[in-house]
Amino acid sequence: MNADDRPPEGEFELISRLAPFLASDGEGLPVGHGDDAAVLDVDGRQVCVAVDVLVEGVHFRRDVSTLEDIGWKAVAVNCSDLAAMGSQPTAAVVGLCRPRDVPVAEIQRLYTGMGEACARWGLRLVGGDTVAADALALSVTVLGDIPGGRPVRRSGARPGDALLVVGPLGAAAAGLALATGGAATDHEGPEAATLLAAHRRPVALVAAGLELAARGATAMIDVSDGLGADLGHVCSASGVRARLRAAALPIPDAVRFVAARSGLDPLELACGGGEDFALLAAVPAASAGAVAEAAGEADGVVAAVVGEVLEPGDGPAAVLVLADGTERDVSDLGFDHYLR
Amino acid sequence: MNADDRPPEGEFELISRLAPFLASDGEGLPVGHGDDAAVLDVDGRQVCVAVDVLVEGVHFRRDVSTLEDIGWKAVAVNCSDLAAMGSQPTAAVVGLCRPRDVPVAEIQRLYTGMGEACARWGLRLVGGDTVAADALALSVTVLGDIPGGRPVRRSGARPGDALLVVGPLGAAAAGLALATGGAATDHEGPEAATLLAAHRRPVALVAAGLELAARGATAMIDVSDGLGADLGHVCSASGVRARLRAAALPIPDAVRFVAARSGLDPLELACGGGEDFALLAAVPAASAGAVAEAAGEADGVVAAVVGEVLEPGDGPAAVLVLADGTERDVSDLGFDHYLR
Repeated sequence: MNADDRPPEGEFELISRLAPFLASDGEGLPVGHGDDAAVLDVDGRQVCVAVDVLVEGVHFRRDVSTLEDIGWKAVAVNCSDLAAMGSQPTAAVVGLCRPRDVPVAEIQRLYTGMGEACARWGLRLVGGDTVAADALALSVTVLGDIPGGRPVRRSGARPGDALLVVGPLGAAAAGLALATGGAATDHEGPEAATLLAAHRRPVALVAAGLELAARGATAMIDVSDGLGADLGHVCSASGVRARLRAAALPIPDAVRFVAARSGLDPLELACGGGEDFALLAAVPAASAGAVAEAAGEADGVVAAVVGEVLEPGDGPAAVLVLADGTERDVSDLGFDHYLR
Repeated sequence: MNADDRPPEGEFELISRLAPFLASDGEGLPVGHGDDAAVLDVDGRQVCVAVDVLVEGVHFRRDVSTLEDIGWKAVAVNCSDLAAMGSQPTAAVVGLCRPRDVPVAEIQRLYTGMGEACARWGLRLVGGDTVAADALALSVTVLGDIPGGRPVRRSGARPGDALLVVGPLGAAAAGLALATGGAATDHEGPEAATLLAAHRRPVALVAAGLELAARGATAMIDVSDGLGADLGHVCSASGVRARLRAAALPIPDAVRFVAARSGLDPLELACGGGEDFALLAAVPAASAGAVAEAAGEADGVVAAVVGEVLEPGDGPAAVLVLADGTERDVSDLGFDHYLR
């Protein structure tokens, strides 16, 4: 996109200008707009709901991902939103925009991928709408239960809480760089396959999210915009600041390897790359190590205590402490489709 | 669209080829795919869910409808799906595809229309996703309760039941013809305004749907594809045939007037026009007149006993008996975006 094509505002600005049209928390609505998902009260039962739209050319490319991958991802990104609330996905519906030149067999491949993701996370694809359009796009809505009875908000982080990251950081961004030729390295090794899969078949950490909710997480968000921006969202919602330690971030060796070969900064990939669908949670400091371990084990992924929640005050909401002790503002470092 | 651009199958064919990928009725899923909406069981509470996608140039035109109208319609069409299950809408989420040249102020007009529709039917817009795309499109998912505890399916019609239509037929099609110049008549009179509104601001008959469910409707569908096609869906799902009486159909005088002036067949507008969002229901014959009256009163619209459900057998699933006693097959007469 050329700079001249850019609208004057980014996605976050757009969201803020649409917020007045959306319902806030209230009677029958334990969680309104502004979190990873909304939560409705249905006669005393909580129902979690999230929607994400993937558009060809903006969110996926058919030369980078298979149609099965794209279907998988459309479900996975919503499951990740629910995971960040401590919700177990139960059902999905899909609104599909189908260009006339895409044969039914290819649409069936999208549905195959959606079905694989639904099987992976224990939900069912219960319906949808398929319409003619010029561009291929999927709008998936996922519903879920809150087994613990208490959704985990972005807004509950308290000064003194420890910050955890569950799941590897930077892998999806490194995988996308590999897939699109932005990383000049061997695409064949097992590390490359892992990174490419992180982009093409992201894993929603549903079991980890349930574990974190059960173990008293005070705030949670999925890392979809980039760790820096997403921590910024938590700080803003909770009215706190936060500090991350660069050395503690769970950045896989493969990400560092690709970054080194390609002249990319692994911290940029980890903090600003987006789409890792790791979970970032605030938890009571006393139990942080044990909670991180349990959450990582729940989904078989890395997990680490990466920082702490600070009192509100002046200065950037979220900073990253580098190895040399200097601090870097990361609260605006994120992934924003509108500004790309 | 040129004939050469057409895919080999219509929307109904596509739906049938995607059906194997969707969940059927089963444990925890009182109503799976294939009805107006799905119904989930959430710890004993039923949650109804439907999704509809509207795409610019396919489902709406900005020179025919305002952005507020388009937002309204995106919510209304889903509320109509829920109405046809006997469900009360409670919440909506929206996935919005936004071209870069559409200013935020215009997106806010879409949200204003969605908000007006949500206020009209007592639901809340609780969240969404807004992404960059080349075409303007809205994918709205609506959730609802089933106050009567029993969703009304397409599949429950029994031979001997009476068929009711609640709400006027042909008005939306006549309004679209007026708006797009396909009807050569005066656009200024009160009748024209009513017909244009039927296209631009369709009314979901939620109160009527609840009334029909409470009064024992055995099957129900909203008339979105055209009365003939939608009755065909009910016959297919219920394993029955059906007969409609042309003289009994609630076709407003304004529709007949526009049709007469424009060389259109009012029965074609009423049976094949689509998008009326009337309700078609099967009810026990003994109480049909009283049920029709109560359902019409619930939403302040016309309602009529229009035919009867027949035993399965040879011949077309749905026929229309004309004034001269001849029968016409209407089960394939409907609205199919892919074949337009």
